[in-house]
Amino acid sequence: MGATYTLGDIAGRIGGTVEGDPGLRIEGVRPLEEAGPSHLGFLSDGRYARQAAGSRAGALLVSPDERLSGRNLVRVADPYLALARVMNLFHPAAPPRPGVDPEARVGRGCEIDAAAAVLAGARIGDGCRIGARTRVHSGVVIGEECRIGSDAILYPNVTLYPRTVLGDRVIVHGGAVIGSDGFGFAREGAEYRKIPQVGWVEVGDDVEIGANSTIDRGTFGATRIGRGTKIDNLVQVAHNVQVGEHCILVAQSGVAGSTRLGRGVMLAGQSGVAGHLEIGDEVRVGAKSAVLDDVEAGSFVVGHPAADHRQWKRMQAALRRLPEVLRRLRAVPPAGGRRRREG
Amino acid sequence: MGATYTLGDIAGRIGGTVEGDPGLRIEGVRPLEEAGPSHLGFLSDGRYARQAAGSRAGALLVSPDERLSGRNLVRVADPYLALARVMNLFHPAAPPRPGVDPEARVGRGCEIDAAAAVLAGARIGDGCRIGARTRVHSGVVIGEECRIGSDAILYPNVTLYPRTVLGDRVIVHGGAVIGSDGFGFAREGAEYRKIPQVGWVEVGDDVEIGANSTIDRGTFGATRIGRGTKIDNLVQVAHNVQVGEHCILVAQSGVAGSTRLGRGVMLAGQSGVAGHLEIGDEVRVGAKSAVLDDVEAGSFVVGHPAADHRQWKRMQAALRRLPEVLRRLRAVPPAGGRRRREG
Amino acid sequence: MGATYTLGDIAGRIGGTVEGDPGLRIEGVRPLEEAGPSHLGFLSDGRYARQAAGSRAGALLVSPDERLSGRNLVRVADPYLALARVMNLFHPAAPPRPGVDPEARVGRGCEIDAAAAVLAGARIGDGCRIGARTRVHSGVVIGEECRIGSDAILYPNVTLYPRTVLGDRVIVHGGAVIGSDGFGFAREGAEYRKIPQVGWVEVGDDVEIGANSTIDRGTFGATRIGRGTKIDNLVQVAHNVQVGEHCILVAQSGVAGSTRLGRGVMLAGQSGVAGHLEIGDEVRVGAKSAVLDDVEAGSFVVGHPAADHRQWKRMQAALRRLPEVLRRLRAVPPAGGRRRREG
Repeated sequence: MGATYTLGDIAGRIGGTVEGDPGLRIEGVRPLEEAGPSHLGFLSDGRYARQAAGSRAGALLVSPDERLSGRNLVRVADPYLALARVMNLFHPAAPPRPGVDPEARVGRGCEIDAAAAVLAGARIGDGCRIGARTRVHSGVVIGEECRIGSDAILYPNVTLYPRTVLGDRVIVHGGAVIGSDGFGFAREGAEYRKIPQVGWVEVGDDVEIGANSTIDRGTFGATRIGRGTKIDNLVQVAHNVQVGEHCILVAQSGVAGSTRLGRGVMLAGQSGVAGHLEIGDEVRVGAKSAVLDDVEAGSFVVGHPAADHRQWKRMQAALRRLPEVLRRLRAVPPAGGRRRREG
Repeated sequence: MGATYTLGDIAGRIGGTVEGDPGLRIEGVRPLEEAGPSHLGFLSDGRYARQAAGSRAGALLVSPDERLSGRNLVRVADPYLALARVMNLFHPAAPPRPGVDPEARVGRGCEIDAAAAVLAGARIGDGCRIGARTRVHSGVVIGEECRIGSDAILYPNVTLYPRTVLGDRVIVHGGAVIGSDGFGFAREGAEYRKIPQVGWVEVGDDVEIGANSTIDRGTFGATRIGRGTKIDNLVQVAHNVQVGEHCILVAQSGVAGSTRLGRGVMLAGQSGVAGHLEIGDEVRVGAKSAVLDDVEAGSFVVGHPAADHRQWKRMQAALRRLPEVLRRLRAVPPAGGRRRREG
Repeated sequence: MGATYTLGDIAGRIGGTVEGDPGLRIEGVRPLEEAGPSHLGFLSDGRYARQAAGSRAGALLVSPDERLSGRNLVRVADPYLALARVMNLFHPAAPPRPGVDPEARVGRGCEIDAAAAVLAGARIGDGCRIGARTRVHSGVVIGEECRIGSDAILYPNVTLYPRTVLGDRVIVHGGAVIGSDGFGFAREGAEYRKIPQVGWVEVGDDVEIGANSTIDRGTFGATRIGRGTKIDNLVQVAHNVQVGEHCILVAQSGVAGSTRLGRGVMLAGQSGVAGHLEIGDEVRVGAKSAVLDDVEAGSFVVGHPAADHRQWKRMQAALRRLPEVLRRLRAVPPAGGRRRREG
């Protein structure tokens, strides 16, 4: 039973225009197939246009060129971005109930903002600073001398190693581990000697880190995640990596040690980037691809080893034809008078 | 010092027949190489037949057509299934010691069955329901308004976000996170705006979820895991995914957002399925494969991009021959009178 | 403000020789670009030689054949190994403050060495043994009858299932789960029956296990990690696997059930090894490769399916040429008088 808004209200807040009844009361957003008469239905994909026709949604959120008649519509330039705004309208983030739960543990010399919330079973090491309205859920363990900004959320069972720095509005999902030792060993004969990892992790403002992801501390200095970057679940970021601003690291992707990602880089699911590489701004890496060399800004690379996506498609198309081509070639006389061994 | 059973008892309970001494007392099951005179040895694989001959096992669990003489045998149609039953005979699941530990924390308005066990350091949010004989281990954090069936087990450090629903006999291994926010962002210029994820996760009866796996909540409605599905460790299931009944998701596999898996789908280790796809019933996806398109029921697909497994094998065989074939082709005059540039 | 050492001290401890001022006081190690006049700069890679010339480092740690003049140098046969030693010199591991925190929970019949440290919010089951100077951080949950050696570290939110055995100096990073049930199910019609997993995990001395990695218990006996092996983050080791001594398992790699890795095996990032295989000593598996067959000792394999790395390179090079080759072949008359269908 949240707040309701008229279609006109909604259009005004997202820079859209109403077709139909601007006074219609809307109580929430739903996917087309679930929306009812008091919902704003969302048309996420052209393929769903037929569903739109049959939807019971009271109104639809659509792009300017969508052809739909006889429906209440809110037209907006970017419906997906508008969805984000409408969802925030109906589901505003409530400030937490401030205070440190008596069953939480806070170390010596900490500065916990009075508007922060530290829940039962959270453990905060000595010398930490936590900003206003930040939530620390149960089971979170924060090492010594961490600094966490305001309006951040640490979901249950997150682990921050000592000296981790998180900016404002950072969200860390359950089970993520930030600041663990980098994987650095020197070989001595058949054995490995650990190289102490004495750096830390710095996470910029507005970063989100998915469940059970891992970000290792730098060997000497900082592993850095740039402002606005979004990291999905089960992602690995190794020591000394520098991730630029506004990057997207999709689930189960990984970045090996000391690699730099520029601004706006997109790593699709299960992709990986080898160590000590430079990945330029706005590079896209396809799903399950393995980047083994530097990549120039603006490239879209796919495959293992990752290559230009058009080249990869041509190679895959050629490979699909290859068995038949080789069959045909069997009867071609071998070059240079050599005897055929294949076939 | 558990219970012992005669060979005849065991055969009767698993629908098998004894060859040799039905009165032989058996005190456990062991792999062939470890089994002694009071153990039932298990022949998991044809390759081990020679080991069977040399095994000290008092008796062997074998298929009807296995050739072995001079040994006590229990013959059964499906020895691997029989193993599951015999193991359950020797290792019955004991009901937990019921009750809420004084060092656990249970929110307001919860209904915790009197036969459930909530261990020290578990935290349960307001308004949760937990069924009979369900175990909630230390370090588990359960958000508000979760519903958990009976005979379930939540191993240590599991996180359930609010409104997660788990059926009866669900097993969730250590560190798994269920209900985290889906990875949904709308781009605005160079930046990303979070789309609030207000759905939940529903997990059917008899599902098992491996250690440190992650299942995201739906954007609006439910991410669903069908009854009887088994999920291994470090598996990612994204928001809005619908996994059918009796599927198998092997370790480090992943399913991207809004994809539907039918019944009995099998994703081998480190495989991935892209978003918004339909994967039919009984589809098998090979290890490390990347499914980028819909897959018809009953298919077995392999590779990146995943293709029919026979086609993939032919392509790989052709690729292995390719370097030699290209070498031979060097001397073939180029087509169409063009100058050769390659070679 | 840690201890400082003269260049001569340092050289003596790492078996190196000084060029320049042996009395120079050094207060730490830094990467070349960050090092100042009181730091020993580290030249990790030939490519950085130019940076070395411009570095403000008071001295440089270099190999015997490095050409640099007019600088204070410590020359040593293996600078990377020397780095590990110098780092340990400047960052010695301090013994923990011993004792069991009043907010920790220790079960009945445990033997916790008086010099061990068990922090607030750690939970230790009945019958466990924990050695001298071992640290058990907050949020760690240890099941019944585990045995942990001396000088080990269990970072926050680690889960050990019952009967796990960890050797001396083992390090387990945050969120790792050791001893979870193996993924063993027998099919019965359309459904799966769980095979109880009654084994355990044994981890040798000097092993390090990364954040959120998972190691399943054996079905009957032990899953084993050999002495000195280093496991990175988000790695999966399935039930009954036997990992030899001094192996390296890089992030997001996985080993399926019952496979044996010899001594000194190296699995690069995101690689996988199928089940029931034998991987010989000193085998290297390339990044993102999928090993589907046994591999002989000393091999270096890459790809999916993994093949000899030279063969894989030739195959990839040939594949890159393939689209152009097929284009040229269009005009070649088909073999055997058949009509062309391709092109």
